[in-house]
Amino acid sequence: MAKVKNTAASAAHKVSPLAPSRFATLPPLAGVRLATGEAGVKYKGRTDVLLAILAPGTQAAGVFTKSKTASAPVDWCRSQLKHGSARAVVVNSGNANAFTGQAGMAGVRAVAEAAAATVGCKASEVFMASTGVIGEPLPAEKITRILGRVAEDASASGWRAAAEAIMTTDTYPKLASASAMIDGTKVTINGIAKGSGMIAPDMATMLAFVFTDAALPASVLQECLSAGVGPSFNAITVDSDTSTSDTLLLFATGKGARHAVITKASDKKLTEFRRKLDGLLLDLALAVVKDGEGAEKLIRIDVSGAESDAAAKRIALSIANSPLVKTAIAGNDANWGRVVMAVGKAGEAADRDKLKISFGGHVVAEKGLRAAKYDEKTATKAVSGREVEIAVEMGIGKGAARVWTCDLTHGYIDINGSYRS
Amino acid sequence: MAKVKNTAASAAHKVSPLAPSRFATLPPLAGVRLATGEAGVKYKGRTDVLLAILAPGTQAAGVFTKSKTASAPVDWCRSQLKHGSARAVVVNSGNANAFTGQAGMAGVRAVAEAAAATVGCKASEVFMASTGVIGEPLPAEKITRILGRVAEDASASGWRAAAEAIMTTDTYPKLASASAMIDGTKVTINGIAKGSGMIAPDMATMLAFVFTDAALPASVLQECLSAGVGPSFNAITVDSDTSTSDTLLLFATGKGARHAVITKASDKKLTEFRRKLDGLLLDLALAVVKDGEGAEKLIRIDVSGAESDAAAKRIALSIANSPLVKTAIAGNDANWGRVVMAVGKAGEAADRDKLKISFGGHVVAEKGLRAAKYDEKTATKAVSGREVEIAVEMGIGKGAARVWTCDLTHGYIDINGSYRS
Repeated sequence: MAKVKNTAASAAHKVSPLAPSRFATLPPLAGVRLATGEAGVKYKGRTDVLLAILAPGTQAAGVFTKSKTASAPVDWCRSQLKHGSARAVVVNSGNANAFTGQAGMAGVRAVAEAAAATVGCKASEVFMASTGVIGEPLPAEKITRILGRVAEDASASGWRAAAEAIMTTDTYPKLASASAMIDGTKVTINGIAKGSGMIAPDMATMLAFVFTDAALPASVLQECLSAGVGPSFNAITVDSDTSTSDTLLLFATGKGARHAVITKASDKKLTEFRRKLDGLLLDLALAVVKDGEGAEKLIRIDVSGAESDAAAKRIALSIANSPLVKTAIAGNDANWGRVVMAVGKAGEAADRDKLKISFGGHVVAEKGLRAAKYDEKTATKAVSGREVEIAVEMGIGKGAARVWTCDLTHGYIDINGSYRS
Repeated sequence: MAKVKNTAASAAHKVSPLAPSRFATLPPLAGVRLATGEAGVKYKGRTDVLLAILAPGTQAAGVFTKSKTASAPVDWCRSQLKHGSARAVVVNSGNANAFTGQAGMAGVRAVAEAAAATVGCKASEVFMASTGVIGEPLPAEKITRILGRVAEDASASGWRAAAEAIMTTDTYPKLASASAMIDGTKVTINGIAKGSGMIAPDMATMLAFVFTDAALPASVLQECLSAGVGPSFNAITVDSDTSTSDTLLLFATGKGARHAVITKASDKKLTEFRRKLDGLLLDLALAVVKDGEGAEKLIRIDVSGAESDAAAKRIALSIANSPLVKTAIAGNDANWGRVVMAVGKAGEAADRDKLKISFGGHVVAEKGLRAAKYDEKTATKAVSGREVEIAVEMGIGKGAARVWTCDLTHGYIDINGSYRS
């Protein structure tokens, strides 16, 4: 475990009080070498390009933003996923290469070709992701000209540096690691992510890259990933704003210890792997929401007894995205009336008189009014810590969902009133 | 016209910079007498109860929140509207009487009965609205015990005082007046409104009361009101949070100069009246959004060329409710990439490469990238004033919509981190 320090990227904003006190140290993962460089795309004096070199035979899966104005790299990755094989990933921060027209796609292609020449593969085997300002032309040449030099320093131990190179308004790097047994053979899963604002579910939120040395075909990876993203990345929201660039990629190098051949995601030998993968995806997703722009608190919202799971999730997100709920929590105000409001506006079936709302296990409202045993001190204490739990029992069905968000503070306004300039 | 002054209610927060420099002075309106009193429901040292006494024969129409957790007064008004006749309106600020169970409805009934005794009518002819904190029991007795005394001072000239008595986090009272000819006879329309936070369309937003001395049956009033609310109150948003208490009531006393008998809203003799009513509703709605919590700027958003009018409205609201768009405008940042993002996440049909976005008439993006004639200075100037215009041409259909919002500033956080306590 390495001690947390303030990175160059976060110099402008204080490190989130929800940052972990120590970051995971990721072990080497057979078949993955990492390198970072300073291209100067936008930021000065910090790394802003990540190159991950993958062993021949690596299989890939991905999920992306559902935005109708997706970025050029998202379009590119979607196309390349069809063949499922990958040899390199290039990520830049400082520029999202979104809404950049033909020039945007030309930029992706230029970077993919440069990476392919460096790594010795086809351009179609290079995946790319970009994060930063929307609408600025990508200075691809700044990236292509350094890739060869960057690749020379590629190493199996560059995980922390990789996570730092892809930060934008993030105040700390996000890393997670897990190991799992596949039919008696140990495999490793490493992941990194970035994200702080423009975070809302409905896809894989922002950028995350997960690698395993297991030998799994792309179709199996895709099924595992699509299932795992629902209760993790698709269950967090910082500000209800869905990015144009959200990308979550999962790569399997097959270069770890040899294990049983797996051809179906439903294979029981994969059970532990999938559980560990799901846990890692959740770790990374929570790291993103804990670094939500201006976040001072992590808020978990559980909705149960709704008409369906989908209804429960929409109600949970209505609460999680309510600026009035989020500002109340920021102010240590056990303002459960705003939770009532957010349930009421969600557009899902609800019966006012069957609702039951709890803060940190303390029932604050039920049967259509304030709970008989409501205690202001207890309720206030429940919303005053770094982690806040809100539970809503709808009382009309069996649908349930859990989502996470952060509070809405002056920090969010500070960061976003001046991000581009 | 009366000079704007800081009212008691707004002492805690500075008056919105978007407040009008002078308020409309509303003329007496035949059949309406107004009185206000200090019940001490929550606030001290200011009026918090409005009693409007209506002439016998007054007809009523209303639209209400679509929240599934509507307040007791909303439930009450919905029931009473069925018979369409009204003799009094009681409004209190400081307590929304929402999520207050059986006690909440008992409180409404107690107030209605007290008002009925004072005015000399049936309780069912008394309409009520409450605004303020959700979930606190309404101290109805504080209101009922002063109604008789309050009624003694009822006058035809109390409009400004009426608008002030219903304020909560509002920083200025909202008033509007218009006159219209019905088949050669002049009638008057007066309206007051309140609202500053928890403002999102999907109903009549917050509280507004409109009165006319015209003689129109409830069915005609209702049709005029339901049509008028779409492009006015249902086209504004401050924070995407829909209130439990939204109520817009329209009363026609029939005590003005006698005019032609009207039995249908589609009667051509009503054309001017409806146009003036629509204008007045828009005036009041804009007064609400200009007093949005923490608002420094009024933002108008026009979406055209969408698949349908409904799609255009959803896209416009996606932009209007995006915290990233709102904070960028607050920071004088012509960050059109965030408008692209908000269009992309709206879930409506969109073609990235056909979008055209303008700030204050200056085209900033088109054909899938930054406009060739984009000028940073011009774009920045367009978002730096008190009023900002964003136009989005989708380029795929004929649907259009216009909505208004305000920016998101530190003031919103200040107000809502401590509202309840």
